[in-house]
Amino acid sequence: MASESVPSKHIRLTSHPGQQGSGGAPAIVWGAPSAAERGPVVGTTTNRSQRNVIGSHSGSYGVYRALAVAAGSLVKGHRADLTDTAPTDLIGPHPQWCDAEKIVSIDPWGASVQNVFADFLAQGYDVRPTIAVTKAHIHLPEIKQALAFQRLQVDGRILLEDSSAAVTKIAVEPVWWLPGVAKRFKVDEGSLRRALFEETGGMYPELVTRSDLEIFLPPIGGQTLYIFGNPRDLADPAVTLTARVHDECNGSDVFGSDICTCRPYLTHAIEECIRGAQDGGVGLISYSRKEGRALGEVTKFLVYNARKRQLGGDSADKYFLRTECVAGVQDMRFQELMPDVLHWLGIRKIHRLVSMSNDKYDAITGSGIEVGTRVKIPDELVPADAKVEIEAKIAAGYFTDGAVPTGADLASTKGRGLE
Amino acid sequence: MASESVPSKHIRLTSHPGQQGSGGAPAIVWGAPSAAERGPVVGTTTNRSQRNVIGSHSGSYGVYRALAVAAGSLVKGHRADLTDTAPTDLIGPHPQWCDAEKIVSIDPWGASVQNVFADFLAQGYDVRPTIAVTKAHIHLPEIKQALAFQRLQVDGRILLEDSSAAVTKIAVEPVWWLPGVAKRFKVDEGSLRRALFEETGGMYPELVTRSDLEIFLPPIGGQTLYIFGNPRDLADPAVTLTARVHDECNGSDVFGSDICTCRPYLTHAIEECIRGAQDGGVGLISYSRKEGRALGEVTKFLVYNARKRQLGGDSADKYFLRTECVAGVQDMRFQELMPDVLHWLGIRKIHRLVSMSNDKYDAITGSGIEVGTRVKIPDELVPADAKVEIEAKIAAGYFTDGAVPTGADLASTKGRGLE
Repeated sequence: MASESVPSKHIRLTSHPGQQGSGGAPAIVWGAPSAAERGPVVGTTTNRSQRNVIGSHSGSYGVYRALAVAAGSLVKGHRADLTDTAPTDLIGPHPQWCDAEKIVSIDPWGASVQNVFADFLAQGYDVRPTIAVTKAHIHLPEIKQALAFQRLQVDGRILLEDSSAAVTKIAVEPVWWLPGVAKRFKVDEGSLRRALFEETGGMYPELVTRSDLEIFLPPIGGQTLYIFGNPRDLADPAVTLTARVHDECNGSDVFGSDICTCRPYLTHAIEECIRGAQDGGVGLISYSRKEGRALGEVTKFLVYNARKRQLGGDSADKYFLRTECVAGVQDMRFQELMPDVLHWLGIRKIHRLVSMSNDKYDAITGSGIEVGTRVKIPDELVPADAKVEIEAKIAAGYFTDGAVPTGADLASTKGRGLE
Repeated sequence: MASESVPSKHIRLTSHPGQQGSGGAPAIVWGAPSAAERGPVVGTTTNRSQRNVIGSHSGSYGVYRALAVAAGSLVKGHRADLTDTAPTDLIGPHPQWCDAEKIVSIDPWGASVQNVFADFLAQGYDVRPTIAVTKAHIHLPEIKQALAFQRLQVDGRILLEDSSAAVTKIAVEPVWWLPGVAKRFKVDEGSLRRALFEETGGMYPELVTRSDLEIFLPPIGGQTLYIFGNPRDLADPAVTLTARVHDECNGSDVFGSDICTCRPYLTHAIEECIRGAQDGGVGLISYSRKEGRALGEVTKFLVYNARKRQLGGDSADKYFLRTECVAGVQDMRFQELMPDVLHWLGIRKIHRLVSMSNDKYDAITGSGIEVGTRVKIPDELVPADAKVEIEAKIAAGYFTDGAVPTGADLASTKGRGLE
């Protein structure tokens, strides 16, 4: 399949706002001042004339939906009954929602389609929520321990008698406005579209043939937000916000693998969020599905083997090199899109950022959000075998309030061998 | 885009085994008796004439690889340096690898491409591992607690002095042989291909235009295996195998949300696996990336709201109904493909299956693996708010050694409201 070059001039083939009565594809004017002017994202797979996107809903789970239709267990064209599904907490609208520079990879109106696009739904358009807001109680053994050691106290509002924490939790699916995503990566839109098409082995030819379709629903994981305290306080820079932006690491987050600091840092951040909310502030964990630096777990495990087996063993001075040899890059997480969800929440200042990552810090501050203090992981929470990772990262620019390791320090920081 | 109907006769357009010297796409003969006769999976995005698949490597992370190329941080056509990446433990080959009925959704030779396809690699083919095998030490607070309560003891082999468990862990990416996947779902291959194409909004037109390409690398999450004890023992039905097949639930597995039993059941299974391995057996956790019954987290949270808000509140008798209203199905996990990884490990008997799911049990036994005892989650580990879920599932066919709840029981089993 040949990849056509993309015309640099965009000809909008979809219909114009106000034409929705015609039953065609609603126009999308990204960053428009209201939901009505912005227009709904329509990713239906049954009524093609109404589609105004490339791709389909639910990220990679669209593939399972396809299996369900093939297997005959899901009726083709099923429309979600959205009764009682509306958000438990009202988020926004915030001025950032109408700024095409601030948000390019999620749909700010995605949580409230039941409401703001009620007219389209009434006309039979298949408009689906891409964000869902609910409540939960979460129980973490590490928080129970913090209570036992009296680092935290039950207050009945944030931390409950049964040692669970009360949270608002929000699931967010990716909705990419391609012109904005390209700008974020400082490339022209045509190059972005061509790379997305070619490097996936030809996924969605519309990426290169339909420059009029500016929205892409990529088949990737999204984000989950856990809010401690009142979600409305996130948008008030006068309320102290403690936040961590965490990238998924299944091996540590779930199973407690000791080669990295992921779960210890995450649970430390949750403790900080709870304490901050109890002290009159608000806390936020933003959890992104970017396993193994967005390289995936197979690559991650290949790198583990190469690190442990190399001449001289696993050492901090060669930490990044082994990933580069296997993957071609040190990291593919691209924090460029990460701040979008913070702007969606209306955040203008993070008083305490529980992260040492310079990439995350640069992305957040570069997007116009002020950051106060940076909170590093306490030394006693770093597993012995994870010293290689954390020392290498500090030397490469991660935040520390201690000494930056020298080349000799890095060469002498060793991890366990394979046994 | 129109979906062409698929010719029922497959014309193999790729080259034949033995022709690899020609530089064309190697033929794949799924289920062939050796790696050489099966042929390598080539998902390169640079040399199209050598590709013999639809899609690209790394599941959904292929999208991030595309971003990396677009952003200029990854050189197009980077070839992985596989030095020192080979598996830490030899798995197979097992007779099941050469049985096109037993394995259809992963590549049995995917862990050993460095070795079995060395000739193709030497000729410049971009053959990538789709399975990676490594070692790890895992620390779980729940296991530390089991030690404190003396339910478990340190033995220095499975459970170490620092209360971590020594495991072999394996990441597995999906590699679908479409004729076999179709057969598993009891549909014709053309219908499967058409549904995959149409219900994803037109992902990979080759699904419907290239029936000669039988391999699909779908952009979905894969599986991770955690083995306690000697991995070679998995294939020996005389060694007692304790196993759980677990489907991802980020909200519980990582954050401990109390609306379901996922993390408590998972950590109970890990405790059972450790005990079994210490007693001379072997343990296995197979963790599948199928968040929210493969509906994704947005749908899951919408359903939570609908359950909690419905007339009469959250009750077990209406548990499945709310999911069906929103998603159109109760569940999209499709356990049909799940046993593949068990066959890859050579498993013929699971002595203790730590799962109550009838779908999982039926899929495992239906695929020819014997199951001995089924181990239910201990009552004291079921969070109060998760009673709705577990009672509804037991009534619908989940295994129990207790009483099956009646309609009246289900109606009176209530969850917490939204507060």
